Amino acid sequence: MTNVDRAVHHVRAGRDTIQRELKDLAAIPSVSTLPYHSGDMRRAAEYLAGALRTMGMHAVDIKPTAGHPVVYGEWLDAPGKPTVLVYGHYDVQPVDPLHEWQSPPFEPSVRGENMYGRGVSDMKGQVIAVLAALAATLQHGGGLSCNVKLLIEGEEEIGSPNLAPFLREHKDLLACDFSLNCDAGILGPDLPALVYGLRGLAYFELEVRGSEHDLHSGQFGGSIHNPAQVLCELVAGMHDADGRVTLPGFYTRVRPLTADERADLARAPHDDAVHLREAGNPPGHYGEKGYTTIERIGARPTLEVNGLLSGFTGEGSKTVLPCRAMAKISTRLVPDQDPLEVEAQLRDYLKQKAPPTVRWGLKVFAQTPGVLTPRDTPGSRAASRALESVFGIAPVFRREGGSVAVVSQIKDILDVDSVIMGFGLPDDNLHAPNEKLHLPTFYRGIETYIHFFANL
Amino acid sequence: MTNVDRAVHHVRAGRDTIQRELKDLAAIPSVSTLPYHSGDMRRAAEYLAGALRTMGMHAVDIKPTAGHPVVYGEWLDAPGKPTVLVYGHYDVQPVDPLHEWQSPPFEPSVRGENMYGRGVSDMKGQVIAVLAALAATLQHGGGLSCNVKLLIEGEEEIGSPNLAPFLREHKDLLACDFSLNCDAGILGPDLPALVYGLRGLAYFELEVRGSEHDLHSGQFGGSIHNPAQVLCELVAGMHDADGRVTLPGFYTRVRPLTADERADLARAPHDDAVHLREAGNPPGHYGEKGYTTIERIGARPTLEVNGLLSGFTGEGSKTVLPCRAMAKISTRLVPDQDPLEVEAQLRDYLKQKAPPTVRWGLKVFAQTPGVLTPRDTPGSRAASRALESVFGIAPVFRREGGSVAVVSQIKDILDVDSVIMGFGLPDDNLHAPNEKLHLPTFYRGIETYIHFFANL
Repeated sequence: MTNVDRAVHHVRAGRDTIQRELKDLAAIPSVSTLPYHSGDMRRAAEYLAGALRTMGMHAVDIKPTAGHPVVYGEWLDAPGKPTVLVYGHYDVQPVDPLHEWQSPPFEPSVRGENMYGRGVSDMKGQVIAVLAALAATLQHGGGLSCNVKLLIEGEEEIGSPNLAPFLREHKDLLACDFSLNCDAGILGPDLPALVYGLRGLAYFELEVRGSEHDLHSGQFGGSIHNPAQVLCELVAGMHDADGRVTLPGFYTRVRPLTADERADLARAPHDDAVHLREAGNPPGHYGEKGYTTIERIGARPTLEVNGLLSGFTGEGSKTVLPCRAMAKISTRLVPDQDPLEVEAQLRDYLKQKAPPTVRWGLKVFAQTPGVLTPRDTPGSRAASRALESVFGIAPVFRREGGSVAVVSQIKDILDVDSVIMGFGLPDDNLHAPNEKLHLPTFYRGIETYIHFFANL
Repeated sequence: MTNVDRAVHHVRAGRDTIQRELKDLAAIPSVSTLPYHSGDMRRAAEYLAGALRTMGMHAVDIKPTAGHPVVYGEWLDAPGKPTVLVYGHYDVQPVDPLHEWQSPPFEPSVRGENMYGRGVSDMKGQVIAVLAALAATLQHGGGLSCNVKLLIEGEEEIGSPNLAPFLREHKDLLACDFSLNCDAGILGPDLPALVYGLRGLAYFELEVRGSEHDLHSGQFGGSIHNPAQVLCELVAGMHDADGRVTLPGFYTRVRPLTADERADLARAPHDDAVHLREAGNPPGHYGEKGYTTIERIGARPTLEVNGLLSGFTGEGSKTVLPCRAMAKISTRLVPDQDPLEVEAQLRDYLKQKAPPTVRWGLKVFAQTPGVLTPRDTPGSRAASRALESVFGIAPVFRREGGSVAVVSQIKDILDVDSVIMGFGLPDDNLHAPNEKLHLPTFYRGIETYIHFFANL
């Protein structure tokens, strides 16, 4: 029996314990965007610090930032071997609309092959998976054959606003050969994948204001400009008839897809009908003309409305002419778009299109550039071989639609690339009600991480 | 001293008592659209029934409907004299956004010349004014020189859905020569007015649905149609560049303004700058091209967004692709538009414009036609003379932007016209935070009603 076999055997025998640990962590409502959860953020950080100490990590610490703290730990007893900086986050998305959950979001529960709860897939499940792999290797697999540093932050879901300063401040402590980012997924329970491209994110809140207060729609309707109407006009104008974003200059810096890359992406297993089912059965596809679904999601930039609010939204009717209207609007960016330039493009658009009969204001919540990582590095090869060992087939290299600010920040500040390997599934309902984790895939993920560290 | 003088004298001496009665009534949160206020609706009805009994009305009763009950009372001891059916309502609009109120909406408080509170102007103040006039005339003015029936309903703010059945059921009880509708206002503290035109109302809730649940905007954004984006496109398309409503056939039945009527409306005192100030200082005017502000408000139909809701609307950011988006949309109608036809026009518009990539649904909350009442009737002349006696100048005849379903229902079912006379002011913040009642105008209103009943 090899060391890897022993670690795998131990993990298989201890699944109940691992599942309980995930439930304990996922039961903590660590919603980073909501100020009243700050105590829960602290509890989640303390839970993880305790787990790191128990498994034998050294220098475990909850390090402060200007926002939520970072959990750190290290194991550096493999001199001469490469050092991996493992990245994860312990914060989660808000849970609303709460009434659509079939079980309470912070009471993780198992139904069939899945565990349901906020954060079980994004990404407390991924964090517990990599910790379980490290613990099993340290305690039952003959120890690690590489050096590991762990960085688990608490602000990923709000765009990691304090991570870059943290990386700069602790640049020496975090020095490494490459980073393993576990905040990712594969394409299906039997379709392993490695992500080499991530989209960037620029998130805005647009407010249109008319009067100083709400008005009676009969007294004033038809005589002043309704901010909700203006907001709708502004949002409607942000896409043209071909599904292209109309912000001036939005596509100027977009790196065109090469013929090779398009051929590669076309080889990835994908079925538009399956994609619609995973998307919760909308009546049809939509997107930028001239691109496939896979290209639209991973390789092309998008603009989406994430929220709308104006006037009366309760049951029944209220004949109010609202004084303001709000839209949350975010863009997903690809290399080489610059989120600061996108903000300027949105401001230009609003300056051109907003009528003089209203006032408007823009808040900025997140600005992360997109990133492409090299596909042929020692870390990448170790990950690829690990996936093939556990899943029986070689992984697909893919570009993902989501955004992980830290990948570009680690490249910029620590000057290392990231291997992006996690075990979420496309139908995990990330950021939505009834988020789930597919437990068989979760267990395969733990075994893959065991192989990955051994392969280095 | 005439009987009228005695009644007026009594009212002037008893202003504190009348103000206290208004405060007691306005302190009851009788919000008809919110189911959890049904107990408060009952309390408001009982308060009024008690007041009617105390002042000497007969046959006082709280009469059930399929919704909130109607308060009824009568005084029929003037044989051979005309019978007036006085109409009012005891329900009020919701109070949100609550945080914009400077004092609690259901703790009426006086600051300067105004009382602030939900319903103080629309229309508990008007109801208390007409009751105070009747009480003073009955008790101190030598009795009424006409017969009076009082009908105070509890569903005006939700479109009076059960009033027509009530009128039909109690047609004999409610038989009268004409109706006095107190749910109205004048143009300024020194600008008395009588309303001869009211707009109709058709109120809708449009929902656009995509997926069965919310999605991660990075995983699915750009590949399916965002319902919030589609909703914005649909709403934006409901007006053209000239501010005209684009629903197919919307203007077909609109009775054109005659040259005479336009000249009349142009003579009404109006200042666009004052109107903007009353509208809470938006940056400019807006409306249907080719019409004045007064025409836009009273004599032309409009379509307004009353509310928008979709996705994440809390603080900060959530990268969600919402599964649904909702807009509350209402149209104000003029003669001879038919609210049922307007519903069909909206459905036609949606069938033509909604893309096949989403589903949509429409709820209907109110359907009231617009109305024009004759300007030269005994009731109208009595009201005009009463206003001139108290305010010192003859009233302006005007068309109001608001909608009062009962005026057309009373015409259709009881076959009588309405005199529409109330004492709200344009800056009373109806349906909005910080609704107020101008107390000097309120007192003048009481005196005008005393003159009105005596003039008959």
